[in-house]
Order: sequence, then structure tokens, then C-alpha cells
Amino acid sequence: MRLRPFRLVPILAALMLLAIPAIAAAQDDTTAIAAAIDSMWFVIAAVLVLFMQAGFAMLETGLSRMKNAASVMAKIFINLSIALVMFWAVGFALAFGDGNGFVGASGWFLPSDNVAADFPGYAESLVPIQSQFLFQVAFVAVSLAIVFGSMLDRTKFVAYIGFGVLYAGLIYPIVAHWTWGGGWLADRGFLDFAGSSIVHLQGALAALAGTLILGPRIGKFRDGKAVPIPGHSIPLALLGVIILMIGWAGFNGGSGLAAIGINFGDVIMNTYLAAAAGIIGATIASVFLFKTIDVSQMGNGAIAGLVAITAPSAFVDAWAALIIGVVAGLILPPIVIALERIRVDDPIGALPAHGVAGIWGTLAIGFFAVADKAGVDGILYGGSAEQLWVQFYGVAATVGFTLTASAAVFLAIKYTVGLRASEEQELQGLDISEHGMFGYPERFIDVPGATPEELPAGHAPAPSGAATTTKPVTAS
Amino acid sequence: MRLRPFRLVPILAALMLLAIPAIAAAQDDTTAIAAAIDSMWFVIAAVLVLFMQAGFAMLETGLSRMKNAASVMAKIFINLSIALVMFWAVGFALAFGDGNGFVGASGWFLPSDNVAADFPGYAESLVPIQSQFLFQVAFVAVSLAIVFGSMLDRTKFVAYIGFGVLYAGLIYPIVAHWTWGGGWLADRGFLDFAGSSIVHLQGALAALAGTLILGPRIGKFRDGKAVPIPGHSIPLALLGVIILMIGWAGFNGGSGLAAIGINFGDVIMNTYLAAAAGIIGATIASVFLFKTIDVSQMGNGAIAGLVAITAPSAFVDAWAALIIGVVAGLILPPIVIALERIRVDDPIGALPAHGVAGIWGTLAIGFFAVADKAGVDGILYGGSAEQLWVQFYGVAATVGFTLTASAAVFLAIKYTVGLRASEEQELQGLDISEHGMFGYPERFIDVPGATPEELPAGHAPAPSGAATTTKPVTAS
Amino acid sequence: MRLRPFRLVPILAALMLLAIPAIAAAQDDTTAIAAAIDSMWFVIAAVLVLFMQAGFAMLETGLSRMKNAASVMAKIFINLSIALVMFWAVGFALAFGDGNGFVGASGWFLPSDNVAADFPGYAESLVPIQSQFLFQVAFVAVSLAIVFGSMLDRTKFVAYIGFGVLYAGLIYPIVAHWTWGGGWLADRGFLDFAGSSIVHLQGALAALAGTLILGPRIGKFRDGKAVPIPGHSIPLALLGVIILMIGWAGFNGGSGLAAIGINFGDVIMNTYLAAAAGIIGATIASVFLFKTIDVSQMGNGAIAGLVAITAPSAFVDAWAALIIGVVAGLILPPIVIALERIRVDDPIGALPAHGVAGIWGTLAIGFFAVADKAGVDGILYGGSAEQLWVQFYGVAATVGFTLTASAAVFLAIKYTVGLRASEEQELQGLDISEHGMFGYPERFIDVPGATPEELPAGHAPAPSGAATTTKPVTAS
Repeated sequence: MRLRPFRLVPILAALMLLAIPAIAAAQDDTTAIAAAIDSMWFVIAAVLVLFMQAGFAMLETGLSRMKNAASVMAKIFINLSIALVMFWAVGFALAFGDGNGFVGASGWFLPSDNVAADFPGYAESLVPIQSQFLFQVAFVAVSLAIVFGSMLDRTKFVAYIGFGVLYAGLIYPIVAHWTWGGGWLADRGFLDFAGSSIVHLQGALAALAGTLILGPRIGKFRDGKAVPIPGHSIPLALLGVIILMIGWAGFNGGSGLAAIGINFGDVIMNTYLAAAAGIIGATIASVFLFKTIDVSQMGNGAIAGLVAITAPSAFVDAWAALIIGVVAGLILPPIVIALERIRVDDPIGALPAHGVAGIWGTLAIGFFAVADKAGVDGILYGGSAEQLWVQFYGVAATVGFTLTASAAVFLAIKYTVGLRASEEQELQGLDISEHGMFGYPERFIDVPGATPEELPAGHAPAPSGAATTTKPVTAS
Repeated sequence: MRLRPFRLVPILAALMLLAIPAIAAAQDDTTAIAAAIDSMWFVIAAVLVLFMQAGFAMLETGLSRMKNAASVMAKIFINLSIALVMFWAVGFALAFGDGNGFVGASGWFLPSDNVAADFPGYAESLVPIQSQFLFQVAFVAVSLAIVFGSMLDRTKFVAYIGFGVLYAGLIYPIVAHWTWGGGWLADRGFLDFAGSSIVHLQGALAALAGTLILGPRIGKFRDGKAVPIPGHSIPLALLGVIILMIGWAGFNGGSGLAAIGINFGDVIMNTYLAAAAGIIGATIASVFLFKTIDVSQMGNGAIAGLVAITAPSAFVDAWAALIIGVVAGLILPPIVIALERIRVDDPIGALPAHGVAGIWGTLAIGFFAVADKAGVDGILYGGSAEQLWVQFYGVAATVGFTLTASAAVFLAIKYTVGLRASEEQELQGLDISEHGMFGYPERFIDVPGATPEELPAGHAPAPSGAATTTKPVTAS
Repeated sequence: MRLRPFRLVPILAALMLLAIPAIAAAQDDTTAIAAAIDSMWFVIAAVLVLFMQAGFAMLETGLSRMKNAASVMAKIFINLSIALVMFWAVGFALAFGDGNGFVGASGWFLPSDNVAADFPGYAESLVPIQSQFLFQVAFVAVSLAIVFGSMLDRTKFVAYIGFGVLYAGLIYPIVAHWTWGGGWLADRGFLDFAGSSIVHLQGALAALAGTLILGPRIGKFRDGKAVPIPGHSIPLALLGVIILMIGWAGFNGGSGLAAIGINFGDVIMNTYLAAAAGIIGATIASVFLFKTIDVSQMGNGAIAGLVAITAPSAFVDAWAALIIGVVAGLILPPIVIALERIRVDDPIGALPAHGVAGIWGTLAIGFFAVADKAGVDGILYGGSAEQLWVQFYGVAATVGFTLTASAAVFLAIKYTVGLRASEEQELQGLDISEHGMFGYPERFIDVPGATPEELPAGHAPAPSGAATTTKPVTAS
């Protein structure tokens, strides 16, 4: 029997009754799935960026003196905790809340019940606000870690707390708001994909203010000449750089703020090509300028390449990433020399690696940006004179604001609780003078001739010439 | 021409024939996609938790004496291998197999052909059983790593093997079954989201049994006073803590056992806020009690905050996470002092950081839990006196069982193969006495006056006063 | 009123007009979602494999002498940058481009506009070509890191550059093409899931060529006997191994080249079970052969287990993974002894851990492979004599080609720019002689009696017996 057409109608109707809810359910499923994917990418990227704290910890402790090694770790820990609490309480609201072009002003203490009103920029996102916070706070912690790299070996611990509270709670959020919070720079088409300016240049500007107000380490400049004060462990310092490189996959790769529809692999490839070019550039420049294959310059070259590609990573082609990175690496050693000429003491080289490279990377968008790369919207003028001009005044505004604000905070600290450790503490080392222990306690057990005053409680100086390391000093 | 309605019927029928299979195929696709997402999150979380082995390795070697640094690494490696093999062979079956309220009893050697019958709790999960195993075994390895932190610098290597086999293969799985395997505590509404009690408190209880049976390190208590025996590297120890923090994103974030429908970002935000508060709490308490900014207390404060938030991380609001963390940090230093008063020697501070904080975190659910947080089911009484009572007896049962069982195993080891290294081995260091090499071999090359007996094969003592480190001792 | 069937037709037609596009849109969504998932897994796996650079850095610096510690880090950095640039420019095209059975020949400089033509093997993949590149280049960097592990402490820096360029740009890509690029070995059914042969054995073969042409370190063999030259830091070396283990989750887990439909959890479980068995095997063998629980053998046992399971990880059951791993661990110590007997100097043990274990793992497919494991296609003969024969000549071809090509390159370097550092440089250490700084600068401040010539610029020798580490030598 051949079914007459209209006999099919009730069957079709029944099928439709099944199909329509199935489609609706599938769409619900699809939304839940899409939310899970984007959230997962966010959180993984956030964890990678948080891992950069281990990178900064190793880089900075490795490049500090042995007698200050523990104080660096204490600094990392207190800064990270301050960044988390302050950015949760107020910073996220200032950066991403609903406000005006200069600053946000809603969403204190990260409420999650009315995201569209509190954080208009996140109204469309499938990603829960807590994951958004995790990703953003990791950037704050990176920026804050950069600040104190230039201030190592001579800063009072209490100064980290004071500056950290105001930087994570006020200075950083304001500048972040201008671009990422939909503020006045965003309106003008300023582009900073993952923060060459917002995260790295800002950190370096605060570092510059800090190191100028602090002054150089004792003995750094003598008879008008800069004296090298090498850190205590190149292996730990360079381990730190590798960890930073790993974290940068999340730093740039996550900055598309979604996984679906974003070619984050392209962003990360650009990131690593620029890092490679930065290493090569810094190696070549150090061979010419220092007549040696300087290992710490190689590490800083990787960082400079990474910092420079951070702003343009989603907007440029691979060959441009290589150029951006190699330039960042090549200019690093001459800037190190120039800074020492003008008597600026920057123990980890944060000013050239995060500051100058940050400026270069932000401007590079004006030279190399291509529209429609990697699925990221927002390019107004891509690779044009207009774009370059916008990039330039975005940088200028950041320099003006952050340098001024940071200097004000550091001066306030200097004239209240004090910014710099005493000469005696600096010579003795911050570990024993501020933290009551050495970073390498056994290092001091067998120092022949060490006086008991130089040793921590429970330690005895080694009898001169004795192999004391094989006997615990505390043994009866 | 206007098509008469019934002329549409064959066209609709044809379309339906396309649409229905498309919907079915889409549903198949959706299931495969959902399985991939949940599995990916599982495996990434598992890898993050496994990375915590690097954290414990650095924390424990950093806080051990230089002469025992290699033995700590050997311990981490043998424990991890034992945990993997034993939990695969029997532990997973005891924990998650089909059995009674006390213990599971199916699924030996992790068969994958009949998951619903062997592991009823996983019947609904889209995630393959091997990924479930990976996630769970990483927790076992964490718990086992905690045990030996309190037993450093004096335990025989063979004891690690014996205890590891029985802990990963029997003790841990039984307690895990009570809650996570659907056992008697789960039935009563006991909540331990990611293991404040099951992983951390259990590890600390075994550590307590172990350190009491071992006794303190030689020289730790002298003239009725505790003598500080600092570890050899604060930078490595604190690097370890940062790695643990990173791993904790997987530890708590993965414990929703799925990605779709779980707000894991909220869980991880709580986790890090509690860590931050733990650091702040421990810093404040150490300034008051020790009159110094104690770096190792800061690190342990982070751990205490993380341990405490582990059980409630999916059930509480952010402000509660901060309170839970700060309390965990504040109580840490006084407990360290109290333990030394009663002559308990705990080189890495595992008892306060994992034990006391684990109890506090488990009980905190009774104070702060909110229903319907983060998409996780299972709260019966959330934040009530009933819940607090359930939490209390869950802790009590864990303490009773694990302390007794661990003490029995350690005593059995003590009276058979032996638990503690000889006095001579302990003084000499476990590296050379048990492992035939120093952890820092060159450390001993240039010890002026070291006798050949103190040096490893192939090493010669440095001529007193000579700069021997620049010449290999083995050169002809 | 009862609706007559044909009255439903226009309603159905309207619904269909909604439903069909909804289905089509859902399919588009599903494709975008599937692409995001697979890409995410790819990129996360790539980042994990790149993290292995930190693992090799720590392993190799830890097992090198203190005076060469910085040079190892420099080597890691230059190699990684060379691998990224060379493999992007030409290597990827040679490995995965359209060509013949021996080598690919399209897709230079990674164009993304015509993937199906340039890289036929990726025509069906949803994953963007840049993410494919990231994953593959991470493997190249691993293989290159292995090469120089055997050549530590005596190789000129310039040799790393020359060999790196030709290995990442030519040798590795050719062998990779044979199997993964759809070349002649793939046609014959040769299986190497994640690269036991392609990555690890190749690296070890180049290492063998290199160490034979270089000769042993000064002082390694004296009076016909091998003299142990221990590295300087077992904790760092073993930290490196843990990082390698973590990275291996991406190495093997990502090698299914997709997340959806692949049971990567099974692959990773096999990976870790083999690592565990490798540790146990090496521990047992070292107790028997060396009469001690050798910590560096334990670490190398983990690596051997991981290398061996790399080829078969997606094809075998868990019990087979345990056997494959334990055999790899057990044969490690005897091979170490055998290599020293024939006067081959291999500072990090790369030849047994990556070479012999790589061969064993590749052949093990012939013994243990099971069809239809883990959703991975391509097994022709799984676990049969035919498969074993294919595996055998795949290994033989790799040995023949890579050993010859690497030896040719190293000989060319030797007779042009030079391969080995001068005796003076080697005795002084490569850090100061090639890189102008010590890896541990403060190590040398307090060497009593060190002559100024032995110290880097800015350092002064410690007055004998003075506790100089508490005073910066540069202080005025």
C-alpha cells in the first residue's frame, strides 16, 4: 500500500513533537557544553598564568644574593596573597565594573547574582564571573611581581605590603579599565591584546619609580663605574624563565577570553616564535657588546620577546612575530648598559625586559597588525599610521599615570614606614635581618671563622678547617 | 502558484527523514563531545595533582638537611611508584568497588569491561574508568607524600616501601570508600569535597603515628628545649609550596568530577582566596609569636589555608573561604610551638598544616556551607548543627581508624625490618649511608679537612685552602 | 475543535523552517565546539611537552658539574629557539608536507591558507595548523635536548647551534616523515604512537655519535677504570625527572591527535604505570649491581619506563605497560656498566634511558599490542610476528639513518668550527670560559685561596678563614 501524503501528517506531527524538544534540549546542552569549554580554557589559562609566580620567584631569587634568597620568596608570597584579596574586594570592580571611561564603580566583592549589570563587558560571556576573576587576578599578580624585581636586595618588607595593596587595589585596575574595561582607550581603538602595556610596562614603570626612589644597592656603583653583582644561582634563574615561557601560553592564549571560535594556537605559536627570536637577538647582541655568550641576557631575551609579542600576538603573522621578538632581544643588552651609565640599579633587568619591550610591542601593532587574525575582533585601523598614533598615546598615558601614581605611593611609604632597609640590614642580608633565618641555613654552618652573631639561632660556627657539614650542629 | 498545504507533505516527510537522523547523530556527537570535555578536565586535573609530587619533593628536600637531600627525592619516587601500582591493583577496588558500607570489593586490577557493575558510583559518568583512576591515584600519592614529611632525616628507606604498600593498598582506600565510595559516612551526609580529611588529615595522622614511634631527630630536643634544625634551602622549599598551590587548582577544581554543569572556577577562586588568607594569617601570627616574618611559616600558612578550604571549597561563599583560610594560618604558629613543647618532631610542619587545618576545614562545612553552590549536589544539612555533628564524627572516625592502623603498621615495621636509621647513619646523613652518594656531591669535594671516609667513591678531600672547585678531582 | 490532519501541514511547515536551520546551526555549533575541544587538548598537550624543557634543564644541570651549570641552561635556551625557528621554516614541511615516501616537500614557513594541499595528513583535522605545529615542534625540542645530555661538560657552544640547525631542520623531520608524515614506514604498518623511536631513540643515536666523536670528559677513565663524576645537585636532577613525567602526560596523551573519541586517559594511565614499573625495576637492579639504592638510577628508571611505553602506550593493556616499564628499568643499570666498560662517557645516562629503552618500547608493540585500544586506528598486525618484524626494521632504518647523518654533521663541525672545548676551558669550566660568569657566582666568593684569575669580574677571593658570604664583595 502506498501511503497517501496526508496520511503522513499525524506521523510527522508526532515526530515534530519529539524533534522540537530534542532540538531545544540539544541547544541547552550545546550552551552548557560551550560554557564548560570556554570556562575550562579560562581556568587552565589562569592556572598557567598563576604558575608564572613560580617563574618570577625562581628568576628573582636566582638573581638575588644568597643572603637575600629567602626574602625574595617571602615577597612573592605576600604579594600574591595581597593581589588575590585586594583585586577580589575592590580591584576587579574598578577595572571591569560599570562606571565611566576612567574607572569602573560597581561589583565590589565580586557579586555573582547580577553580572550583566555589575560587569557589562561580561554580559554576553558564558564563563562564570569567578573564572573571569581568576584569569584577571593572575595578571595583576604578574604585574606586581615585576615591580619588585628592580628593587631586590634592599627593600623593607613592609613596603611590599603597602605598595601591593595600592597597586593591586587601585593603580593597576584603573589602567586596565581604560582598555580592557571598555574605558576611554578602548573607545579610541587602542589595542593591547594580552597586556604588553597594561601588565608589563605598568609593572616596569612602578619598578622604575621604586628603584629611583630607593637608590642603587650598596657597592653597585663605585668610582663612577657599575660593578656587576651577580645573583647566586643561574640554574634557578633560568628555570624561572622557562616557567615564565610556559605560563605565557595561558597569558596570551587565554586572552581571546574564549576557546570556541578563537585560534589560540596561532596566538601561542606567535608567542613562542617571538620568544625564540628574543633569545637569538639577545645572544647576538651580548656576543657583540659583552664579548661573551651571556646566559642571563639569553634568559632576559626570551622574556623581552615574550613581553613584546604580548600586545600584538593575536594580530600579526608569524614572520612579524619573529621580527618583533628579535628586535626586543637585540635592544636588550644596549639598554642594560645605558641604564647602568645613568646609575639606575635594576637587579633582574625588569626595566628593559618588561618596560622597553612592552613599549616596543605595543607600538609594533601599528606596524604589523593584520585584520581578522585568530578570530579576535576589535581592530579599527590594523597596521596603519592612525593605529600607530593611538598605540603611542596609549603608551604615553600609561607612562604618565603609572609613573606618577607609583612614585607618589613609594614616596609616601618612604616618609612614613620607610622604603629602604638600613645599611646594616642590607650588608647582613635581608634573610637574617628581616626574616630571622638564612635562605640557605647550612651555607653558614661551615663558614670558617663566622662569628656567632652572624649565624641564626641554633647554629654554631664551624671550627676553622673542620668538615662540619657531615655533623648536625645541633647534635648532642 | 500558491502551493496547497498537502503538497508540502512529501517535502516535509523528506526533510524529516533528514532531520531525525541528524538529531540522533547530533545527540551521539553531543555525548561524545561531553565525554571528551569531562575526560579532559579530569585528566588535566589529575596531571595538576600529580605535579604536586614536585611540590612535595621541593618542600621536603628544601626543609631537610643537605646531607639528606637526595634521600628525600628517592622517597618521593618510590612512594609514587608504589601508589600507582598498589592503587591500580587493589586500592581502587577497595575504595570504589561494589561492596558494603565499610569497604569495596570488586574491580581488582581495574577492569574496564563492566564499569557499571564493578564501580557502581561511576555507572553514570561519561568519563572512562582509566581517567577516573588517574585522578584518584594522584590523591593517594599526595596523602602518602604527607606521611613521610614528618619522618624526614631519620627513617630507613625500606620502611617507606612497607608502609607505602599498606597505606596505598589498604588504609587510604578504606577511609576513601566511607565517603567517596558511597560508604557509611556518605549515607549519613558527611561532606568532604576534595579531601581535607580523606587526603590531608589521613596523611597527617599516619605522620603523627610515624613520628611518635620514630622519636625526634638526634639533637632536636636538648636540655628540655627544642633546637631549630633549619632545612637547607628556603628557595626550593617555597618553590615547592607554589607548585602545591598550582596543583591545588586540579585538586579542588577537579573534585566536581565533571566540567559540564560545574562552576569549577568558583571552587578554584575559593581555593586561592583561602590560600591568600592562610599566608596573611600565618604572617601575622609569626610576627606576634616569633617576632619575625618567618618565611617557612608563610609557606606553611598557604598550605594550611589550602588544606582547610579543600573540604568546603564547593560549598561556601568567598568571604567564608577567606575566614576559613585566615583561621588556618593564624593557628599554625601556636600549634608548631605546642608540638615542640610536647616533644613531637615534625620537620616540615605536616601535623599543623595538613592535620589541624584538615580538621578545621572539615568542620567548617558545618558553619559555612551554603546549598546549591557551584553545581555540586549532595548537601543534606548545609551549615547547620546537624551537619556539624556529622562532620565531627566523620573526623573522629578517620582519626580513630587511621591513627590505629598506621601505628600498627609502623610498629610492625619497627619490630621486623626496622623503622629508624642507625645513629651513625643519621649523623652521617642518609644520602651517603643509604644511597651511596651525596645529594650535593661537590659540596664535599672542597670541604677542607674532610677525611676520605666521609667522601663518596671517586672523591678526594680538598687540600686545605685550595680552590678545588675549579678543578675536577678526577682529572689526571 | 479537532484539527484535521492537513490543517497541521502549514504549522509543521513553519516549524520545519525553524527546525532545519536550527539543526544546521547546531551542526555548525557542533563543529566549532569539536574544533575548540580538539584544539584545546592539542595546545595543552603541547604546553606540557614544552614544559619538558624545564625537566631536561634541571636533569642536565643537576647532573653536570657546578662549574658547567650555567652552560647547560644556555644550551637549553639556544636549542629551544633553534628548534622553534627551524621547524617552522622548513622542518614541518619536510616532515608533514606533501612529498614522497622519504620526505615531504610543501608547506614551507607554515602557510595556513591551503592546509589540505600543503599537509595532506591534516586535511581532515579540525585543529588549526598552528596548533598542529606547536605540538610537533615540542617533540623536536625534546629530541634535541636528549642529544646533548651525553655531551655535557665538554662541548663548544657553537656546536650546539650548528647541530641544532641541521637536526631540527633536516634529520629529525626526515625520520618523522617516514612514519608520522605518511611515509614508507607508515605504509608498511610500522607503529610508533608517540615516538619511542622517532623522538627518543633518534635523540640517543645523535647523542651516541656525538659522545663517540667528542671522547670522554677529562678524568673519566683512568687506569682503565671508569671514575664516577657525580653531578652537582641530585634534588634539581630529580625535580627534572618529575617535570618530565608531568610533561609525558601531554607527550603520550596528546598523540592521539584529538580528544573526542580518544581514550587518552587510558594512554596516560599506561604511561604512568610504566614509569612506576621503571622506577621499581631500576631500584631493584641498582641494589643488586651497585649494592645501594642509587637515586639517579631511580630517576633514570622512571625515564626508561616512560620512553619504553611511548611507542606502545595506546596499543597495550595495563599489565603489559607494567612489564614494558619494569624491563626498561631492570636493564638500565647493567647497560650503564656496559657502556663504561667500552669507555663511552654519557653524563646523564641518555643512551640507556632514551636509546635502549626506545628500542625496547618500539619492539614491545610486536609482543603486546592489542587492536582497538583507546580509539586509535592504524594497527595492521597488532602483537604478531609480522608486526615485530616491521618494528624491527623500522628501528634498524632509524639507527642507520640517524647515526650516519648525525656523525656526518658532528664530524663536519669538528673539522670546521670545532666540537670540543679546549682542555683549559674544560678544566676551568664552561661557565666562566664560554659564558663569562659562574652558574653559582657566590660559590666562588668564599673559596679560600682562590686566585683572582679564577674569579669572575667583580669578585674578589675571600680572605682565608673569613666569613665573606655575609658581606658583598662589591661593597665599598
